[in-house]
Amino acid sequence: MIPPEHPRYRSLFARERLARYAAEGIVSLEGLSAHGRGEAFDYLLGEKTTASALLAEKTAAALLLTARDPVISVNGNTAGLAAELIAPLQEKSGAKVEVNLFHRTEERIKKISRLLRDHGVRLEEGNAERLLPLSHDRALCQRGGIYQADVILVPLEDGDRCQALREMGKTVIAIDLNPLSRTARSASLTIVDELTRALPNLTSFCASLPRHEAEALAGSLDNTRFLADALEMMKEGLSHAMD
Amino acid sequence: MIPPEHPRYRSLFARERLARYAAEGIVSLEGLSAHGRGEAFDYLLGEKTTASALLAEKTAAALLLTARDPVISVNGNTAGLAAELIAPLQEKSGAKVEVNLFHRTEERIKKISRLLRDHGVRLEEGNAERLLPLSHDRALCQRGGIYQADVILVPLEDGDRCQALREMGKTVIAIDLNPLSRTARSASLTIVDELTRALPNLTSFCASLPRHEAEALAGSLDNTRFLADALEMMKEGLSHAMD
Repeated sequence: MIPPEHPRYRSLFARERLARYAAEGIVSLEGLSAHGRGEAFDYLLGEKTTASALLAEKTAAALLLTARDPVISVNGNTAGLAAELIAPLQEKSGAKVEVNLFHRTEERIKKISRLLRDHGVRLEEGNAERLLPLSHDRALCQRGGIYQADVILVPLEDGDRCQALREMGKTVIAIDLNPLSRTARSASLTIVDELTRALPNLTSFCASLPRHEAEALAGSLDNTRFLADALEMMKEGLSHAMD
Repeated sequence: MIPPEHPRYRSLFARERLARYAAEGIVSLEGLSAHGRGEAFDYLLGEKTTASALLAEKTAAALLLTARDPVISVNGNTAGLAAELIAPLQEKSGAKVEVNLFHRTEERIKKISRLLRDHGVRLEEGNAERLLPLSHDRALCQRGGIYQADVILVPLEDGDRCQALREMGKTVIAIDLNPLSRTARSASLTIVDELTRALPNLTSFCASLPRHEAEALAGSLDNTRFLADALEMMKEGLSHAMD
């Protein structure tokens, strides 16, 4: 039990929540470390959505809305942090949802699928096949899901898989607080924002963006700019700390 | 299993090692997230010991060598990452070692104590009492250990406990990769370096620093400078990334 008067109560509470999901087998132990990395970068952003990130979220909504066959790829951390935020995004974006894990076991797939269904997500039926250019079980995905998608939203994705999806010619939208990560650098569009702040914004934009504006935004994407903005904000975060 | 050709193999391997210790009950699940935060800041430092951190390590050795009653406080992450590096530091510094946990259970205390003894650490005998100005079991420490120490090395310490020790008038040396953390800001001396790089440096300085030089260094401590140096290096780390 963390005493509520602890100045970092909220952040520690979030860690305890993820730790509970880890004990249940939803979040992998390695996922807890990965979450901590994100926390550090979010700290430098002042733990808020920047104007640049908001534009990235609007652009991501545009990509999902104008896609032929969009898919949201959900891993353990995404489910653990934001299970209740996926169904509204699925509804407003019209995307399929597929569970795809770095530390993949059938048991974790089942637990995460159940958690998502309990929160109203419609998951694709069908078995996973080794269709991605990656070794071992990392290659697994569904033929009717990620494999045939043209636009894929991969919150908190591993760099390897992000690159593999790009090499397959797909438009990849990443949500990643580390603007220096391979995921952030290789994605078509990187949202440098915390997951539970980013997803509701994405959903709102999907609900409100007119078609012609979505097409214009999707066509004017410049990811280098979003990454540079995030790095600049983090530098400012470090500078203010020195005052 | 992470494929060895994965570009971030080493970092992921370290995470797996900590995850293994978490499964054994040595490292807490919350400790895994905390480790991730450190990883992110280390990334910005280029994952190397800066000249400023090396001077902080030399100064820390000076504080330990000139102390009346120095103590090294070891928590789960410290034991998990660096069990084999504690005994050499204990030998060269002459410090007592006490196990002190944020997520404290008697079972974890026992497991960590066993791990440390297996690696040659001599632990103080005696029961913990509620002697620190903190709520609940967070107040626990040993009367003949942390309570009566004048200089305490707290690698990877929580900010609350660091402040409590400072309020008791103790000289606190922290090892913390986040120069913005409350621990880093409230410690008497903050080593902004990765634990397994910092500890061997500390041990070397303890073995080699002449008494008169140790006294001079201990008397000239300026922690603001060490923190500002670390922030400046991290800003440079972000700037290079933008090239």
